[in-house]
Amino acid sequence: MQVFTTPKLKHVEITSDFWKRYRELVVKEVLPYQWQVMNDEADIAIAEDPQNNGQDKNSHAVANLKIAAGKMKGHHYGFPFQDTDVYKWLEAAAYSFSYHSNKDLKKITDELVDLIAEAQDDDGYLSTYFQIDAPERKFKRLQQSHELYTMGHYIEAGVAYYQETGNQKALDIATRMADCIDRNFGLDDGKISGYDGHPEIELALARLYEVTHTKKYLELAHYFLNQRGQDPAFFEKQIKADGETPDRDLIPGIRAFKREYYLAAQPIKDQKVPHGHAVRVVYLCTGMAYVARYTHDQTLLDACDRFWNDLVKRQMYVTGNIGQTTTGEAVTYDYDLPNDTDYGETCASVGMSFFARQMLSIRAKGEYADVLEKELFNGALSGMALDGKHFFYVNPLEADPAASKGNPGKSHVLTHRADWFGCACCPANLARLITSVDQYLYTVTEDNTILSHQFISNDAQFDDGIEINQSNGFPWNGDIHYEIKNPNGQTFKLGLRIPSWSADFGLEVNSKTATQPVKDGFIYFDITDKSTTIDLSLDMRVKFMRANNRASADFGKVAVQRGPIVYAAEQADNPAPLWTYEVDTKTKPSSAYEDKLLNGVEVVKVNANQVQLDSDDGPLYTEESDQSTQSTELTLVPYYAWANRENGQMRVWLNK
Amino acid sequence: MQVFTTPKLKHVEITSDFWKRYRELVVKEVLPYQWQVMNDEADIAIAEDPQNNGQDKNSHAVANLKIAAGKMKGHHYGFPFQDTDVYKWLEAAAYSFSYHSNKDLKKITDELVDLIAEAQDDDGYLSTYFQIDAPERKFKRLQQSHELYTMGHYIEAGVAYYQETGNQKALDIATRMADCIDRNFGLDDGKISGYDGHPEIELALARLYEVTHTKKYLELAHYFLNQRGQDPAFFEKQIKADGETPDRDLIPGIRAFKREYYLAAQPIKDQKVPHGHAVRVVYLCTGMAYVARYTHDQTLLDACDRFWNDLVKRQMYVTGNIGQTTTGEAVTYDYDLPNDTDYGETCASVGMSFFARQMLSIRAKGEYADVLEKELFNGALSGMALDGKHFFYVNPLEADPAASKGNPGKSHVLTHRADWFGCACCPANLARLITSVDQYLYTVTEDNTILSHQFISNDAQFDDGIEINQSNGFPWNGDIHYEIKNPNGQTFKLGLRIPSWSADFGLEVNSKTATQPVKDGFIYFDITDKSTTIDLSLDMRVKFMRANNRASADFGKVAVQRGPIVYAAEQADNPAPLWTYEVDTKTKPSSAYEDKLLNGVEVVKVNANQVQLDSDDGPLYTEESDQSTQSTELTLVPYYAWANRENGQMRVWLNK
Repeated sequence: MQVFTTPKLKHVEITSDFWKRYRELVVKEVLPYQWQVMNDEADIAIAEDPQNNGQDKNSHAVANLKIAAGKMKGHHYGFPFQDTDVYKWLEAAAYSFSYHSNKDLKKITDELVDLIAEAQDDDGYLSTYFQIDAPERKFKRLQQSHELYTMGHYIEAGVAYYQETGNQKALDIATRMADCIDRNFGLDDGKISGYDGHPEIELALARLYEVTHTKKYLELAHYFLNQRGQDPAFFEKQIKADGETPDRDLIPGIRAFKREYYLAAQPIKDQKVPHGHAVRVVYLCTGMAYVARYTHDQTLLDACDRFWNDLVKRQMYVTGNIGQTTTGEAVTYDYDLPNDTDYGETCASVGMSFFARQMLSIRAKGEYADVLEKELFNGALSGMALDGKHFFYVNPLEADPAASKGNPGKSHVLTHRADWFGCACCPANLARLITSVDQYLYTVTEDNTILSHQFISNDAQFDDGIEINQSNGFPWNGDIHYEIKNPNGQTFKLGLRIPSWSADFGLEVNSKTATQPVKDGFIYFDITDKSTTIDLSLDMRVKFMRANNRASADFGKVAVQRGPIVYAAEQADNPAPLWTYEVDTKTKPSSAYEDKLLNGVEVVKVNANQVQLDSDDGPLYTEESDQSTQSTELTLVPYYAWANRENGQMRVWLNK
Repeated sequence: MQVFTTPKLKHVEITSDFWKRYRELVVKEVLPYQWQVMNDEADIAIAEDPQNNGQDKNSHAVANLKIAAGKMKGHHYGFPFQDTDVYKWLEAAAYSFSYHSNKDLKKITDELVDLIAEAQDDDGYLSTYFQIDAPERKFKRLQQSHELYTMGHYIEAGVAYYQETGNQKALDIATRMADCIDRNFGLDDGKISGYDGHPEIELALARLYEVTHTKKYLELAHYFLNQRGQDPAFFEKQIKADGETPDRDLIPGIRAFKREYYLAAQPIKDQKVPHGHAVRVVYLCTGMAYVARYTHDQTLLDACDRFWNDLVKRQMYVTGNIGQTTTGEAVTYDYDLPNDTDYGETCASVGMSFFARQMLSIRAKGEYADVLEKELFNGALSGMALDGKHFFYVNPLEADPAASKGNPGKSHVLTHRADWFGCACCPANLARLITSVDQYLYTVTEDNTILSHQFISNDAQFDDGIEINQSNGFPWNGDIHYEIKNPNGQTFKLGLRIPSWSADFGLEVNSKTATQPVKDGFIYFDITDKSTTIDLSLDMRVKFMRANNRASADFGKVAVQRGPIVYAAEQADNPAPLWTYEVDTKTKPSSAYEDKLLNGVEVVKVNANQVQLDSDDGPLYTEESDQSTQSTELTLVPYYAWANRENGQMRVWLNK
């Protein structure tokens, strides 16, 4: 196994129009809006579904911290992990300072760090639900408490805030938390030989180790991963001691889920495929990869490989979304990919991006970058409206307002993005991914190799004055131009990714046609010259995609993809019902950029026959005969941008 | 409006091999088995799903009656309506005596009637849950209590038992119950101006009126229908008085359902389409039609028409099943007909048969008989295994053991019939339909017309020595032979149904080719001769059926039907996965009777191409290209007989 070290990258400036727009949107709309919401100052409607759990009032997330800090009176409100909304928001804000300095926001975030410090107990503990309303139950019901999950999210935020602003207090809160956890958890006598029901602390501690170089944090992360499932009854024993009646549950209904749901039915090394809650899965995977990278623990890396393969080859939607069922927001089984009842939580796509990033740091394989790209341009991005103030929790591949309203099995499938959620994990999770996307473009490896694996225009500065400027009109245009400056004439390897969707590609080095073999999804160049230009032309044909025919839901259907962008048909462009269109895959689709539409998108048109709609007063069943059809065009827009116009039907997988 | 009176039919003897086998099965296996189960003497496993609600022990249904009768000590166990299992069983047994005298069984049923009489309160009340464990709550939480539903089921059983055996005590229990309800319910001061959350009492009281000619029972039934929804807050007011905390609910989780679910959000006359629980819908419809028949209440008949049209034209599966969602076992919305998550409760198909029978008594329209036939040969009959000891509650049109196990949204879809259910409403409901099927073949109308609308071989005796002998090999053979004996040379009209699936038919009268116009699904003959033979040849071609293309789930798919029998592909005959078969609808299917298979069925074979299965290690999504296929045959068996062999996939709607 080849193990890589941290990138020696100094700074990346995103120059991509597409991503700059999103990153400025987060600064101008998303962060202020979410701060208002978390302070209960926004006039919002909480979505009834999904996972509302009776949370129908305001967020109360900042108020909970104020109460814990003794600055306000009252009870905790919301989920036990309500604090994490604030932490993810703080993390998103921290990253935004790297490209948009913002005094007003900085004042708010500095004060927020002060508030969090005041809310933290002297021993480092911080989880406002338990501090305010159930101090006697701290660490006593870890299956449901999310305490380590919650502190993990703070640790991530604290590290990010320290790294971006130098605020030492933000880091100190994190190390005090980690020390508190270290004192309480482990195999030594008197410690809790357990772990959290929701993985997160593992990846957070690995990040804390990265910044502090304090080995015990890495060891603690490693302990949590090794210990998971060693005593499969751990959670039940805690619950027995804490109280078994339903009123003792910290989240209503959570008792329905079995050990597998928490990825704790057996040690990780024995878990063949991921089970249960999709976000738990990808956070655990990220933690495993992170820790494997530093500890060289092969059993963890093997688990990463098993889980990655199962998720990516057998349980991932074409948009990158994962989690097929609303019941427990969970993955189901191989090739079960229902499009109309799926879950595809935004957070799971965000977490899958984390996992892919970690795997790239372990191995230079294009498939990790392919998945990362898929998430960035599709499954994750669809979680936010173009206005930055409306969000999807669930990302379906087929939607129909009549179905969401009329069939309870689809009530979780919103057909328009909501103001906010009772469980508001997704909005700030996506925000922190967008504001940190500059960190996802390069992987620098120990063997003196820089991997450039995302086609997001940027100017990157490395040690030794090395600069890589990438410019392009991606994702709409596939001509990727690189200028590599190497003023000191250093020698290094540059790997450029060839996406799996572009088996055909053109290449010019210093304006001369060149060829290079593709190795695991990358082409490599030995850079020695002070200045090099590379031009890559990717295959931007509109393609009809099909699923592995083991997936019954997609059998006989096609999805449309162009470059990394998966397309969707919407009722806004095409008279409903959308299932009556039969796409003609034998004629060539067309595409054109429309700068006025949906903030500028490449629109795809495909030929189709639309079957004439039957009367609604005739017999429901008749003997089959040829139905009359009309030749027409089906207009498709990028999946990430659906549901930004009138409410209507949407389909990714089309009849043919 | 033409209103018809009760049939003047003396006796029908079923001679159909197909139905004789089922009716003997009920006597030999079903009734003894169910009696054992209800007495907790059978070694059974209770299905975890559907609607288990934590009922994981034995039935306890007879024990509840014994406790209420003071013959045993203990608490009530089971649902508040547990008594109805016993009553439906008693009713099924009663009908069986009409074709199979059975001293041993008669001794049991007579003693059971004695037990029920002892369990009944002096004032006529009988609902063992409330008598044993909550006497202070009688009639105080009608939304959930099922008290009138429960007593309604006894009234049906008591009437049937009296009619079949002459047991006066059985009828007296019923009239005492009805009198008790009459004293307690109505618009007079001091009475409860409400109704039951689950319709049933309405149809039961109409039956009681039929046998007793006591007008107040009809008026009470009419009151319940008129009053329903007049005060939409009636249930909430009762619950407020009885206690609003969840522990006061009589069925866990039932509080989730809104007024519409109980068909009580507005008066029936204002309800445009049926909502909510499918069995409530069809029981209410049956009651409405029954009462409309005797009261000539046009608003009720209009409601019957509205509900019938919506159910049959827009919400019924091709097998006759209704109820598209497991959430509340409910109907959803027009053209929402998912095949893999549907509910299609056996009881709803049984209840739809009741509704169809009543509508036939109001109007001589073939479509009512078409639906009745569809239920008898498909949706209802599939509720029982060929061994008479295993039952379906849910009847899916597409099943996959991997999906039922792996996707919680399909956990209600069993792929093998269960020993018993926590809510065991279906097994005895189907048993009483089978043992009374002789009552569903003829409708005799006031204008001297006998309608013969089912092709179930039988010898029927009418007044004046009129006999109709129908003989055939239906449902496998479509040659229907009638011999009409009219020894006194009476004049009457005979209507024979022409099914909607047989637009083409041959006709001979007294062995000579004849023609007759079809009027509303019937052809009519003036019978005056002492002896007449009629031969009807129905169209028994195997047909590919398609659904109205407003139903997205069936778009581009075909179902296979021959005569009244809807077919299914099973993994037992066809290598899985079943979705990889593309049926060739342009070539003619074949069919042949196999007497050794599934107790004798016509097996259909259709030409198909099977797409070669993709590797399970390749990419999940690839650019579309022609897939390699293999020409093959798909073997189909009647839907009612599926899941009687090894556990595997099943599909009614096939790709083409």
